[in-house]
Amino acid sequence: MRIVLDAMGGDHGPAVTVPGAIEAVKAYCIKVTLTGDKNLIQSELNKYDYPEEYIEIIHCSEEITNEDKPVAAIRRKKDSSMVVGLRLVKENKADAFISAGNTGALLAGGLFVLGRIKGIDRPALAPVFPTTTGGAVLIDGGANSDCKPRNFLEFGLMGNIYASKILKVHNPKVCTVNIGIEEGKGNDVTKEAYKLCQKSDFNFIGNVEARDIPSGYADVIVCDGFTGNIILKLTEGIAATIFQNLKEEFTKNSLRKLAAGILKPGLRDFKKRFDYTEYGGAPFLGVQGNLIKAHGSSNAKAIKNAIRQAKAFVENKVVEEIMKEISQLGEDRIE
Amino acid sequence: MRIVLDAMGGDHGPAVTVPGAIEAVKAYCIKVTLTGDKNLIQSELNKYDYPEEYIEIIHCSEEITNEDKPVAAIRRKKDSSMVVGLRLVKENKADAFISAGNTGALLAGGLFVLGRIKGIDRPALAPVFPTTTGGAVLIDGGANSDCKPRNFLEFGLMGNIYASKILKVHNPKVCTVNIGIEEGKGNDVTKEAYKLCQKSDFNFIGNVEARDIPSGYADVIVCDGFTGNIILKLTEGIAATIFQNLKEEFTKNSLRKLAAGILKPGLRDFKKRFDYTEYGGAPFLGVQGNLIKAHGSSNAKAIKNAIRQAKAFVENKVVEEIMKEISQLGEDRIE
Repeated sequence: MRIVLDAMGGDHGPAVTVPGAIEAVKAYCIKVTLTGDKNLIQSELNKYDYPEEYIEIIHCSEEITNEDKPVAAIRRKKDSSMVVGLRLVKENKADAFISAGNTGALLAGGLFVLGRIKGIDRPALAPVFPTTTGGAVLIDGGANSDCKPRNFLEFGLMGNIYASKILKVHNPKVCTVNIGIEEGKGNDVTKEAYKLCQKSDFNFIGNVEARDIPSGYADVIVCDGFTGNIILKLTEGIAATIFQNLKEEFTKNSLRKLAAGILKPGLRDFKKRFDYTEYGGAPFLGVQGNLIKAHGSSNAKAIKNAIRQAKAFVENKVVEEIMKEISQLGEDRIE
Repeated sequence: MRIVLDAMGGDHGPAVTVPGAIEAVKAYCIKVTLTGDKNLIQSELNKYDYPEEYIEIIHCSEEITNEDKPVAAIRRKKDSSMVVGLRLVKENKADAFISAGNTGALLAGGLFVLGRIKGIDRPALAPVFPTTTGGAVLIDGGANSDCKPRNFLEFGLMGNIYASKILKVHNPKVCTVNIGIEEGKGNDVTKEAYKLCQKSDFNFIGNVEARDIPSGYADVIVCDGFTGNIILKLTEGIAATIFQNLKEEFTKNSLRKLAAGILKPGLRDFKKRFDYTEYGGAPFLGVQGNLIKAHGSSNAKAIKNAIRQAKAFVENKVVEEIMKEISQLGEDRIE
C-alpha cells in the first residue's frame, strides 16, 4: 500500500508532515510518498531515523497556499504538491492522498482530477463529530452550501458505509439535522430529504435536533454543507468560550488556583475526549479515490492518524463499496 | 401600561406565571392581566400578598397545549388564554402580550390576530444569545425555516432597533451568519442577502463565522430560522454535554470532589453568565403589537423578566420604530 501525503499542506508544512509520515510508516508498515519541495522535505527527514525504503519524495516546484483561489489554483498550479499527489491516485500509482492544505482547492482537485463516482451528484466532507459516546460521522461537513434532497440520500448512504466499515458501528443510526424530530418539520429541502431517506436501505431514524447531537443520539448526522459548517464551527467556538470563562473563574484567587490544580488531570482527560487529532482527518466521500482532508492546524500526531485512517479506507474498500451501493439505488430515485 | 400574560402557558402554568406577575407588578408598578382558568389563577394568587388593583383576571374556557397543531389551534380555540390575550393587544386594550406556551401557535397567532407590519414580509423571533461580552440579538431564532434574501435585510433592520433601543448598544454591529467572512461565501440566499445588507442604513459589518458568535463578535446575528434554531439548540446541547462531562471528571474521587467544592461558586458565577432567565423571552418582531415568547421552562424570575422586557418594548416604541424604518426603505429594495 502506498499513501501520498502533501508535505507542504497545513499551517506547519514539512515540520509536522514529515515526522507524522515517519511515525505512520513505523507504526503501520506502509509506504508513504511525500510531495513538495525536495530540499525542505529532505532536511526535515534528516532530523530523524527512518526506514528509507518506505519513504519516497516527489519534488514539486509549486505550492497551493490558503490565499489561492481554489479552482484557479488547481487549474494553473499543475506542479503543486496537491495536484501532483491527486494525479498519483488518479493514475493508480498510489492508494490514497492526504492534505492539510487549502480545503477549497483540495475539494476542487478531488472533483477535477479524481472525478465523481457515477451516481453521486455531490461528494461531501465527512469529519467525525466528537460525542459523549465516541463520535458520529457528520456529512456534509462543508463541501456543498446548497443541496438538493437527493444529496441528503447520498450523504446518508456514504456516511453509513463510513460508520460501519471504518468506525465499526453495527447498523449505524442515520439521521437528518432538523428543527424538530417530527416528519414535516424543517425547510423545503429537509422535508423532501426526510421522505427520500425513509425509503433508503440504511437505518434511518428520522430527524435529530441540534441539541441532541453532542450526546451521541445517532452515528451518522446528515445535513447540507452550510449547516454542517455551522455545527462544526459553533461547537469549536462554544467549547473555546466555556474553557476560557472557566479558566478565568478558576484562577480568581489562590484557593481556587489550588483546587483547579487538583482537577487538572480531570480537565485533561475531558479535553482529550474532544481531541480532533485522535480522529485523523475528514474524508471527501463520493470521488473516485481515497482523499482525506487533514485539519489545517494538524500536528504530527494528527497527520499520523490521518494516514492510519487512509489505510483503513483502502483496506475496507470504501470507494468500491460506495460505487456498489449507489449503482444499486438505480436512477429512479432521482427526483 | 397594561401587560397581558398567558397564565396557562409554559411547563408550569399558573404556579410560575402568577408569582412572576406579582413580582413584576411590585417591581415595575404596571398593570398585568392574566388570561386563563379563573379558579386556578385565583387559587395561586391567594397564596401571596399582592396589590389587587394591579392584577386582573380574564377567564378563558380553553387552553392551547404543546400538542395542539399551531394554525388549527389558533383558528379553533377562540376562547383560549392565548387567543384572548392576543386579541386584547389587537383591540388596544393592552400594550403587550407574553406567553410561555406553544411557540408555533403563538407565532401563528401573532400573524393572524395582530398581523404583519406593512413592508415586513416575515416577522421573526429574536432571542438574546449569551456571549462573553453580554448578549447578541439572534434573528431569526426559529420562525422562518425558508427565507429569501430580503428577509435577512428585514431581520437586520429589526434586530438593530432591538439592540439599540432595548439592549442600549450604541450603533450595533450587525452581521450575517455564514461559512466564511468574505463576500461571496455561503449559499445562494446568504450571498444575495450580503449584498442587500451592504446597502442598508444599519452598521453591517459583513459575515460572521459560527465559531466567533460566542465571543461577542457582533451585536446582531442575522440568519434564517433554520440556522437560528440550530445555533440555539446546539449551544444548549454542547453546554449541557460539557457540564455533564466535567461533573463526571470532578467527582471521580474524594480529592477531586473536595477541589470541585471549592470551585463551586466560580462554576455558579459562570453558569449565571449564560442564564437565559436573565434575558426574559424572545420578542416576535415584525407584527403589529408587542409580543414576547417566554421560554417553555420559565420559572417565576424568567416570567418577571419577560414582563420587564415587554415594558421596555412599549416604552421604547419598538413597533412604531420598525414601522417607521421599514416604510423609509421603500418598495424599490424588494428583489
